[in-house]
Amino acid sequence: MSHELAVRVYYEDTDMGGIVYYANYLKYIERARSELVEDLGMNQLEMREAGVVFVVTRVVADYLGSARLDDRLTVLTEHRPKGPVRWIFDQEVRRGDEVLFRAEVTAACMTLDGRPTRLPPQLRD
Amino acid sequence: MSHELAVRVYYEDTDMGGIVYYANYLKYIERARSELVEDLGMNQLEMREAGVVFVVTRVVADYLGSARLDDRLTVLTEHRPKGPVRWIFDQEVRRGDEVLFRAEVTAACMTLDGRPTRLPPQLRD
Amino acid sequence: MSHELAVRVYYEDTDMGGIVYYANYLKYIERARSELVEDLGMNQLEMREAGVVFVVTRVVADYLGSARLDDRLTVLTEHRPKGPVRWIFDQEVRRGDEVLFRAEVTAACMTLDGRPTRLPPQLRD
Amino acid sequence: MSHELAVRVYYEDTDMGGIVYYANYLKYIERARSELVEDLGMNQLEMREAGVVFVVTRVVADYLGSARLDDRLTVLTEHRPKGPVRWIFDQEVRRGDEVLFRAEVTAACMTLDGRPTRLPPQLRD
Repeated sequence: MSHELAVRVYYEDTDMGGIVYYANYLKYIERARSELVEDLGMNQLEMREAGVVFVVTRVVADYLGSARLDDRLTVLTEHRPKGPVRWIFDQEVRRGDEVLFRAEVTAACMTLDGRPTRLPPQLRD
Repeated sequence: MSHELAVRVYYEDTDMGGIVYYANYLKYIERARSELVEDLGMNQLEMREAGVVFVVTRVVADYLGSARLDDRLTVLTEHRPKGPVRWIFDQEVRRGDEVLFRAEVTAACMTLDGRPTRLPPQLRD
Repeated sequence: MSHELAVRVYYEDTDMGGIVYYANYLKYIERARSELVEDLGMNQLEMREAGVVFVVTRVVADYLGSARLDDRLTVLTEHRPKGPVRWIFDQEVRRGDEVLFRAEVTAACMTLDGRPTRLPPQLRD
Repeated sequence: MSHELAVRVYYEDTDMGGIVYYANYLKYIERARSELVEDLGMNQLEMREAGVVFVVTRVVADYLGSARLDDRLTVLTEHRPKGPVRWIFDQEVRRGDEVLFRAEVTAACMTLDGRPTRLPPQLRD
């Protein structure tokens, strides 16, 4: 089952091509992951104070269509753990039924000094 | 009476100080102005096709407090015409009752080649 | 005498109007202030570790022209202390001789918990 | 042989983790591609007026290290055509000898209405 986040395209998101700038899709999908983390009962600020953060280690992204000013988009996110440390997100940005952007994002659970650490209990296999 | 827009602070908005980067408040208040334009029955894309755009000519901004990750903010906007061409916005970004940011923004109605033109009828005095 | 920083306009800076998005001028002038701080022999990371930061408290900005993709711009910065705590920057963004953007920025020297503190010796009157 | 672009990390690039926000590496590598296009004797504005643009269709990115405020980075870019329409970029962001970010970016040559078109002569096999 997918997590859904509604996103509206504003001027800040567009570039002179009249479409959403390619890096900004990474912002949209990060918003969705942040909401998902919260929905799972975790708090990124508290985790950071406890010395644990999620760090993106890999993004494989396909740009399939173009979003424009005022478009109402939906970010769909499915997720799964992969081993003791990694967390995988399959994410899509859609306008209605049309998939504009698709990404597989890998995050790793890390201590603040950059060593891998075990995922929180609610994310483990 | 004020226009209100809810904004959530995401990672993309913060800087290494742990707070929202100062330029990003201009994004928040622009989102509110775009929503307001739409609520007034105007469509920025159609206006642009008709050769008319709103261009920000002046911003006077006071930074009164700091927003942080996951904060739920409200952008409050009041607006008024000023003469035949200019449109003034008084905008605040609040967290609850606390005003974090306040700006007076002046926009001018312009043709695409940069000449001032009269505000649309629904904005005139 | 002015501090000068060269800036080139990239896709990331533009919006669907084909010009630099209004908030991004605040990025350009912040880059110049950061370079200036360094030229004055200060290191923002070391200052932060010592518990002192510069916080922007006010921006008065006039948008006088439009920068476009590939434009080579110059950020000119003059600065002066104002009282024991505040530091004022007069900044312009120019394309050749044409002034596109002008701002007066007020920063305050603050402790990390948000109390005003005296400017470093090299900035005092 | 690689194209090189020097990039400095400013406040705008960082997030509350104290490091460069993950989407901003896509800005850095796009700056390098824009410089490269120019070095090859093409002008993106003139191409657009002629109805041809490069559109990113795929990004495969690995985050290997973290850049911080004031870091001086180098973006290294190698490129090759792939078939009649696609252009591949192998890009790295380094701090000294350390590779912080590596991406393979696929761009397609498109008409403004979104149909694939042949690469300009100077890019063909």
